Amino acid sequence: MIKQLTIIGVGLIGGSLARAVKKNNLVERIVGVGRDVAQLEKALELGVIDSFETDVGKGVSQAEVVMVAVPLGAMESVFSAMKDHLPANVVISDVGSSKRSVIESAQNVFGELPAGFVPGHPIAGTEKSGVEASFAELYEQRCVILTPLETSAKWAVDKLHYLWDGCGAEVADMSASHHDEVLAATSHLPHVLAFALVDTLGQMHESKEIFKYAAGGFRDFTRIASSDPDVWRDICLANGDALLDTLERYKQELDTLAQAIAAKDASQVETILRRAKAIRDRHVIR
Amino acid sequence: MIKQLTIIGVGLIGGSLARAVKKNNLVERIVGVGRDVAQLEKALELGVIDSFETDVGKGVSQAEVVMVAVPLGAMESVFSAMKDHLPANVVISDVGSSKRSVIESAQNVFGELPAGFVPGHPIAGTEKSGVEASFAELYEQRCVILTPLETSAKWAVDKLHYLWDGCGAEVADMSASHHDEVLAATSHLPHVLAFALVDTLGQMHESKEIFKYAAGGFRDFTRIASSDPDVWRDICLANGDALLDTLERYKQELDTLAQAIAAKDASQVETILRRAKAIRDRHVIR
Repeated sequence: MIKQLTIIGVGLIGGSLARAVKKNNLVERIVGVGRDVAQLEKALELGVIDSFETDVGKGVSQAEVVMVAVPLGAMESVFSAMKDHLPANVVISDVGSSKRSVIESAQNVFGELPAGFVPGHPIAGTEKSGVEASFAELYEQRCVILTPLETSAKWAVDKLHYLWDGCGAEVADMSASHHDEVLAATSHLPHVLAFALVDTLGQMHESKEIFKYAAGGFRDFTRIASSDPDVWRDICLANGDALLDTLERYKQELDTLAQAIAAKDASQVETILRRAKAIRDRHVIR
Repeated sequence: MIKQLTIIGVGLIGGSLARAVKKNNLVERIVGVGRDVAQLEKALELGVIDSFETDVGKGVSQAEVVMVAVPLGAMESVFSAMKDHLPANVVISDVGSSKRSVIESAQNVFGELPAGFVPGHPIAGTEKSGVEASFAELYEQRCVILTPLETSAKWAVDKLHYLWDGCGAEVADMSASHHDEVLAATSHLPHVLAFALVDTLGQMHESKEIFKYAAGGFRDFTRIASSDPDVWRDICLANGDALLDTLERYKQELDTLAQAIAAKDASQVETILRRAKAIRDRHVIR
């Protein structure tokens, strides 16, 4: 059992981790850290955390595990604030959707990285945000990717496996750069595409009517465009290289399909659609 | 009450209409027409239709309303097959996702269009296909667009309003070209984007792993890429002009966003994402 888990950022992701950890009895004490006292008080009322601090240093000074669950753009300042207050042998991890950028932030602050530092990313979420939207089952049967570094100690990696396994997640280790490529393709690009679609239609002069005639397919397709713009601005910038690479491939595919449509090449259009359907039906079964 | 409704093409869309019509007691007799006897027998067994014909002419000769629910590419041959067998004052409509192309097909076959001909499009469906996937509630609280022509008689438009209203749908009339623009934006473009995304990822060498780490957002975003490739090949070609126009706007938006990401212009990225979220949260509430 972990003595104290400090969660910095008690929103959807951090709050759901707290709830899952309580539900599965993995931790003795959960300390929430944030800037917004009203949100922290709500988290306390909801029983998500046991106590809170608005000072990062105080929040981490007794921690066995520190989980940083803030938008990517806030990582570096959080690392700075904890730097001089970390106890020996503390495990430090995070939930950021881009891993190379988090490692860079940590290097900027710590110089030599602590042995307890193991970046991570639970592949789970909803388009909602805030502690009110958090729930204990968010990570059940979901993948959590850890990206241990050369500097990461085995005891730290093991403790994070214990934590996430205990929440019902499937934990996998991979390199940070591989993580960033995979997530660019499956998550960051789709979000960009959905935000861009809604914005494109919103700029059309008959946009109100357009949305009126949108059906269920459109609602599902654009659900991720209701995600938190702050979080996604940071992700777009933090994983920009991998994201733009995948976007480039995607635009080539769109051009191929558009050319086939313009040329009324039924066979080429059908080949692409049929292949896509077969891929989706084979791989996306959940 | 309508004496005989003939549905040509008893799949998800035609079958759901038949079920809705029966549930709401709108029609005395439903005749299904198709080429696949096994499918028609299944529809008969399921109680979706009362009888069937494989010959279009026989199927329509006693009809009060004929509903053509076949892929867009098959419309013209179906119109040809019914041409010499239509009773006087029959209402002819369809469920095609593109309206100008259906009107063109009808003009090619009929020359002067029958007064009973009123093209239509129920904005409803799922990614599944076939009569087994049909259900009576598919059209409840869904929009059905009718695109009456100069040649369309009021009694024909009225009878279709009666039919679709009775199935629980909200019926709206608009011009065929306006329909095609609206649907290109809300339905045809999202489908193309989803098919293209899945195909792009499927071509990447680590595609199996990529899909393994796809989360709920990806599953919803790509659900429409499991739609019937035959249906969507036809839609892409039938409404190609409007679709390619919208795609062009969309690519400009993607370029704007990509440039902002490449330039690490946080404020510009945030502006686009925030605007998109606001638009979606305001308009897509179902």
